[in-house]
Amino acid sequence: MKEFIFYNPTQIVFGENQTKNIGRYLKNKKCLLLYGSGSIKKNGIYDKVLESLAKYNVSFVEKSGVKSNPVLTFVYEAIELARKEQVDSILAVGGGSVIDSAKAIAAGFYYDGDVWDFFIDKAQIKQALPIYVVLTLAATASEMNSGAVVTNEKTKQKFNIRSDYLFPKVSILDPVNTYTVPKNHVANGSVDAIVHLLEGYFTKKYPQTPIQDGFVETLVKTIISSTKQILDNPTDYDARANFMWSATLALNGLTTAGIGAYAFPNHMIGHSLSALYDIAHGSTLSIVFPAWLKYNSATLSGRLKQFGKEVFNIYDAQQAIVELEKYFISIGAPTKLKDVGLDQKDIESIAKNAVSLAKKWGLLEYSEDKIASILTFAL
Amino acid sequence: MKEFIFYNPTQIVFGENQTKNIGRYLKNKKCLLLYGSGSIKKNGIYDKVLESLAKYNVSFVEKSGVKSNPVLTFVYEAIELARKEQVDSILAVGGGSVIDSAKAIAAGFYYDGDVWDFFIDKAQIKQALPIYVVLTLAATASEMNSGAVVTNEKTKQKFNIRSDYLFPKVSILDPVNTYTVPKNHVANGSVDAIVHLLEGYFTKKYPQTPIQDGFVETLVKTIISSTKQILDNPTDYDARANFMWSATLALNGLTTAGIGAYAFPNHMIGHSLSALYDIAHGSTLSIVFPAWLKYNSATLSGRLKQFGKEVFNIYDAQQAIVELEKYFISIGAPTKLKDVGLDQKDIESIAKNAVSLAKKWGLLEYSEDKIASILTFAL
Repeated sequence: MKEFIFYNPTQIVFGENQTKNIGRYLKNKKCLLLYGSGSIKKNGIYDKVLESLAKYNVSFVEKSGVKSNPVLTFVYEAIELARKEQVDSILAVGGGSVIDSAKAIAAGFYYDGDVWDFFIDKAQIKQALPIYVVLTLAATASEMNSGAVVTNEKTKQKFNIRSDYLFPKVSILDPVNTYTVPKNHVANGSVDAIVHLLEGYFTKKYPQTPIQDGFVETLVKTIISSTKQILDNPTDYDARANFMWSATLALNGLTTAGIGAYAFPNHMIGHSLSALYDIAHGSTLSIVFPAWLKYNSATLSGRLKQFGKEVFNIYDAQQAIVELEKYFISIGAPTKLKDVGLDQKDIESIAKNAVSLAKKWGLLEYSEDKIASILTFAL
Repeated sequence: MKEFIFYNPTQIVFGENQTKNIGRYLKNKKCLLLYGSGSIKKNGIYDKVLESLAKYNVSFVEKSGVKSNPVLTFVYEAIELARKEQVDSILAVGGGSVIDSAKAIAAGFYYDGDVWDFFIDKAQIKQALPIYVVLTLAATASEMNSGAVVTNEKTKQKFNIRSDYLFPKVSILDPVNTYTVPKNHVANGSVDAIVHLLEGYFTKKYPQTPIQDGFVETLVKTIISSTKQILDNPTDYDARANFMWSATLALNGLTTAGIGAYAFPNHMIGHSLSALYDIAHGSTLSIVFPAWLKYNSATLSGRLKQFGKEVFNIYDAQQAIVELEKYFISIGAPTKLKDVGLDQKDIESIAKNAVSLAKKWGLLEYSEDKIASILTFAL
């Protein structure tokens, strides 16, 4: 095993009907209540949260309208509001986009300069508002990690920040809150969580990692089986619960602790697809990842065999890729550029955009040519 | 999955040569430096720690002599010393016994009454000194949890405490620090970690826990294979590392989060063996656990089949118990009462003692008769 630091102080409160306890953790605070398009008003989560806030004397200012692939201009507006209203905390009710926006706002709140400075490594986060979460979409694990991704619409950059100050204090994971998540979002979340797990699994160089391998394989298997159960029966509690906790564990630091250097090349290329064409994050990954595996299949053959055996009970490297792709298709996820209306002529611009992130992430072997070659496998 | 709260704020600093960084986390503090019999002076860990403390201007008062199955009188002495010297932190350099003692001292430091009150639920821990750890023995996971076990020599009770205040702030896990751990301690640690994992695995009632099952099976397999490698080659870095991290993950809350109610009946009976005859904790478990599995084999048959298949690649419930017992024997762990010099005539007193812990732990179905019946399988 390679050296690592593992630190994750987020308190997870998991279970049916836990939403009504969120106020307890924010007692007497004044929070910025952040959410998305308003689906939480239709499915009753909003009312439950407000009731709990009232019960524990939590005052709040609302800011709604976070969209998937959250954007910088929204973060600016929210920081201004948070300052004007002098909140002392943020309550994010939503999925990864809402939580990621909360993190950017939390960090920007105390910073005199442009919050984008943190994303382009021009400044370091030294302080942040405490963040609380009621999760409504299982996918990104932002509810239990210290990272966030935001898109700068002006520069067309989808960049990330990371800081120990950004771990949520408390995240409520109530599987019932995800009963109304539509099938395409379930599919996106499933792909996202699986690729979170497999980026490290397939890019690490250090071989002796039986704990992490076993954890990844367990989680991928659980995500695949629970996704199928959810698509069959959206109110299957155990399926929603297993999916939710798997997605959280997929990117909370556990499965990568000790594996040594690893990379997120598929997220890098996927981010460009989102930044340029506003394609949902999960959809970008179900297109890019099989292509990336095919491009690298020769060097990854041993690893693919282990993956195929443990997850799909098959013993052939190429067949492992096929099985994963078949799984993506079976849940309605796009696997080709044409599935999202793109083709050969778009590859050049995607590759150009991705290279700027490759530089930021130190993935210097990813030239425009290489990225373009990978993407041809998605034609 | 059942509802749960997961919270574990301990920072793990894992890797070769990390011991020299311990001072960084205690900068300018005055700590109680706690350790055991002095083996850390022979293997050089003591010198490394002192050098690091000097570098970061950490002053300290020493208290050595923690023994396995740590005792209450020692805790009393250490609390008195810590108060007299007005320390502001505790640095535990050792294994579970040293860390558990540190936790009792940390809690007792601020408490006006008898620290034993916390163990008999007469008082609640409201404050504790911050605890730092340099781990030298992989087994108990005390380095990343909030519990501690101490024996009251007068009352012959081996009881436990638990509080969020007792999570170590930082634990340094340097596998090299365990190169000199003797074979019998490796075996004890191996048994302890495996039984930590399997108590929950075999006593939980809720069936739908694929994540936790997979994690337990992965960790048990890793512990078994790395223990064998260590006994063959005590300086096999990867084996020591995989063993160390597995033992930590075996009782840090991860594998039991979401499994619902579970119990520690084998620890309960084992604690009595330690309290009465001062037998090493791991040895008590390698004797009690196979007996407990045999006693319960009919009701556990489905579970035993899954365990046998995933861990030993065999498909028979009884055979799974035999394989586990064979593993214990292969690493030199005792599996029968006679292996530690006890027999039929001792069973009554063990059962009597265990019942007092059964009451404290709410294991009311464990009567003296039942415990005695279980122990007859260890004759």
